[in-house]
Formats: sequence, C-alpha cells, structure tokens
Amino acid sequence: MKLYDSTHAPNPRRVRIFLAEKGIEVPLQQLDIGAAENRKSPYIDKNPLGGIPMLELDDGTCIAESVAICRYFEGVQPEPPLMGVDAKDRAVVEMWQRRMEIEVFTNITQVFRNTHDFFKGRITQVPAYGEACRGAALKRLAWLDDVLADRPFVAGERYTIADITALCGIDFGRVSKIGVQPDQKHLSRWYEAVSSRPSAKA
Amino acid sequence: MKLYDSTHAPNPRRVRIFLAEKGIEVPLQQLDIGAAENRKSPYIDKNPLGGIPMLELDDGTCIAESVAICRYFEGVQPEPPLMGVDAKDRAVVEMWQRRMEIEVFTNITQVFRNTHDFFKGRITQVPAYGEACRGAALKRLAWLDDVLADRPFVAGERYTIADITALCGIDFGRVSKIGVQPDQKHLSRWYEAVSSRPSAKA
Repeated sequence: MKLYDSTHAPNPRRVRIFLAEKGIEVPLQQLDIGAAENRKSPYIDKNPLGGIPMLELDDGTCIAESVAICRYFEGVQPEPPLMGVDAKDRAVVEMWQRRMEIEVFTNITQVFRNTHDFFKGRITQVPAYGEACRGAALKRLAWLDDVLADRPFVAGERYTIADITALCGIDFGRVSKIGVQPDQKHLSRWYEAVSSRPSAKA
Repeated sequence: MKLYDSTHAPNPRRVRIFLAEKGIEVPLQQLDIGAAENRKSPYIDKNPLGGIPMLELDDGTCIAESVAICRYFEGVQPEPPLMGVDAKDRAVVEMWQRRMEIEVFTNITQVFRNTHDFFKGRITQVPAYGEACRGAALKRLAWLDDVLADRPFVAGERYTIADITALCGIDFGRVSKIGVQPDQKHLSRWYEAVSSRPSAKA
C-alpha cells in the first residue's frame, strides 16, 4: 500500500491528518506538482483526473479523492471514529464534513486557483470568480464562528473529519490572505485546539 | 420524519431516486424556491445555509446535504446497497460519487448558477466562470463515455449513488444545453439504462 502525496497541496494534508489521528502509518510517495508530475503518465494511468492524494492498495486498486481514502481507513480501522458512530451520527458528520468542504475549503482553494500565478496556464482562471469565492469564504468563516459558540468541534462533541477539512482549508487560506479574524473568538478557540493536536503537523 | 423537497432543483432529486431504489417512502414537504422560501425563516432556523433537500427526523435532528441524507438511509436500511458493501467497495463508490459530483454535477449546476436569469440578484454571478464550467462539463462527459466502455455502471458492476449523481447532473444540463452527445455510445447506453429504471421518475 502507498499514498501518493504532495506536501504543498491542501487535499493530501487532509488524509495525512486523518491517518495521524488513527495512528496509521502508510508509505508516502511524493509527487512534484510544480513539474505537473500528477498530470502525466504513469500517474494519470492510475488516476486519470490527476488529483492528489491517491491511495494504491496492494491488490492494485487505486482510490482517489481524499474523503474516499479516509472512508477506506475508517472502514478497516474504526477506532477512533472520525466519521460517526451510528447511522444518524454518520449522517450528521457527513453533513458537517460537506459543509466544511463546500463552504470553507473549496471557496478558499478556488480563490487560489482563480487568482494565483501558480495556476496561470494550467487552468482557465476567472479572477472575478476567485474574488466572489473570497467573499463567500469570509462570510462562511463568520458563520462558523457562530456555529462553534455552543460546541467544541464542528460536528459536535467529538473531533471528526469535518474539523480536519476546515483546518486544512483555513490554513491553505494564508496564501490568499484569508483566515480567522481576531474577533471570531469561538473560531479562534477551535482553531487553537485543533492546530495544537499532534496530527496537525502531519 | 419528513424530507424538505423541491421538484425543480437537481439535488432533492438525488435523494428521491435514492429512496425509490431503496423502496423507502418518506413524507415530502415542498418548498417554493422561486419565492426563496428556503432562504427565510422558519426553514433557515433548521438549515442556516438554506440548501434543499433537508431531512428532519422525529427527534428534531435536521440533516442537510443530499449525500449525508443518503448516508443516513443506507445506514438504517442497507439493502439494496447503493454506497458499497465493504471498506474497499465503499471507498471506491465514494470516489466515483465524488467524481460525478465534482466533475459532472457541480460543473453543470455552476453553468446554470452563473449564467441563468434565475440566479440574477440571488448570487454574485460570474458568467465567464459559468462558461469555463461548461467546457469542463463537456470534457468530463467525454471522459465518462470512456469510463463506461468496460462497465455497466459508473462505479462498476452495480448501480450506486454515483449513477444517481451523474444522472441528476446530466438531466439538469438540459436547461443549459449540456447533454450526452450522439457519438458517446457508452454514455448513451448507460444513460438509457439508468433513465429507464422506475426510480428515475422520482
């Protein structure tokens, strides 16, 4: 088994943190995204869309998509649970994981994709869309501050994959000057708590 | 239990088809999205982001996000399995569900959101981004045609939630003139097969 990784990209970090929380070690293979190694053969023969991370199992099965990779490890090693513990809880955690992904993580990564020089010539950049996403991201962080007023973690009492997605999104916001505002005290408290877990260094 | 629904929107249809495939009946409550009923109280008191569908359980728990709602029903009634049968299969199905959502469904809905009059004044529309998504959607449908050359369904031998997401995305493409091309014979065969299932009318 090996995990194709890039320490510069926000998605692989989601999986690395998830694995660190589970105490699972998986051999990592770095890809050079600056040299577009993930957009060329042999990588795209295994993952035609070129996204990173990708998990390659010993039987040759290739699993792309960060959350799908996490789902695999949640299945083979349920403890500690990071994706819910019964039908209702799994659904609630998935709701929050998706909200963090769509509203926080993706808005923040779309700012980078549509406005940063790194993506110039790699994708069709639409700077106005990036700026719309910046506004949406800031609005959602303010909302998340409210959400966290009555709970320690995004999905409730327990640290879950939703916290991982939010943390990786927010940290990636630095390059686009998006982050937690000083007056967002609940979000600041949460950010401090999840950032100080050993897994955050993964 | 009740499911907040809108027959005009693509996301609620994903859940209705999922329920039809499971043979589960849930009382539906229609929301008038034309009148922005989903953006006002009392709905946003239960789902602050205003998305539809939302499942309200008898204990008051509100689960938003189509895939999270599907996850709940997969948990309480595993048969027939629509989200995988073991750790590896669940991960593979989730990979395909996410690919269909990100690459097909979301690209297609973003064309509508960013170019159609319905969203004028409701969101910050960026028509150039809508057109970029149109190009991406068409490219991904051509890729999906290749994917389907060696398998009956998107995730492999079995009909899954990935087929539901792809179908709802493609059907919603009509309003933006995006659809299966006549020369995409594998995609056409798949489209015919999934569209003729009784669940497609849900």
